[in-house]
Amino acid sequence: MNKKNSEKIPGKCVIQEILDIIGGKWSMSIIFALLHGTKRFNELQKLVTNINTRMLVKELKNMEENGIVIRQVFATVPPTVEYTLTEKGRKLEPSLAELLKWGEEFVN
Amino acid sequence: MNKKNSEKIPGKCVIQEILDIIGGKWSMSIIFALLHGTKRFNELQKLVTNINTRMLVKELKNMEENGIVIRQVFATVPPTVEYTLTEKGRKLEPSLAELLKWGEEFVN
Repeated sequence: MNKKNSEKIPGKCVIQEILDIIGGKWSMSIIFALLHGTKRFNELQKLVTNINTRMLVKELKNMEENGIVIRQVFATVPPTVEYTLTEKGRKLEPSLAELLKWGEEFVN
Repeated sequence: MNKKNSEKIPGKCVIQEILDIIGGKWSMSIIFALLHGTKRFNELQKLVTNINTRMLVKELKNMEENGIVIRQVFATVPPTVEYTLTEKGRKLEPSLAELLKWGEEFVN
């Protein structure tokens, strides 16, 4: 009622989905790691500081459900599992790069 | 140990602070509202959908502590409280604009 068009705030749904995707404690770190290319589960675990197996599984599952990563299983012994960003995931790069630039300027 | 320099992932501290600032359920909506200029508490409450007084107080306090907003109290009857983005807060605009562009492309 009191909203002027010039002051329209983005829809809550959009913001909620953005937060669901990048708001997890390790989500941004995982996306940054995958921006350098496909990674195996074990490689991700080494690259993302302090994440345990259970949490990495959970974050990756959430990212898969949100269409951010594709999970591929190869029938090696033991099986190899690889994660790759989708187009939707890769297109987060400019936003994350801007956020990081801001963080590096303002976070002590 | 296994990290290659070319695959360096941003420091966890930077990502944590970014999430502390924009990861709250309503933080981005509040920042978007304040990007249009100084707002009174009551104006913010009307602009940010579904937020209750307690949560708006909490989010604004967190933003003040993080140096994102300045709170000014005027000795009117009743007192007027106004919130304005700091430079640190205003400089989040490019990141949030990129995130929103991404959200509008990919969120159904």
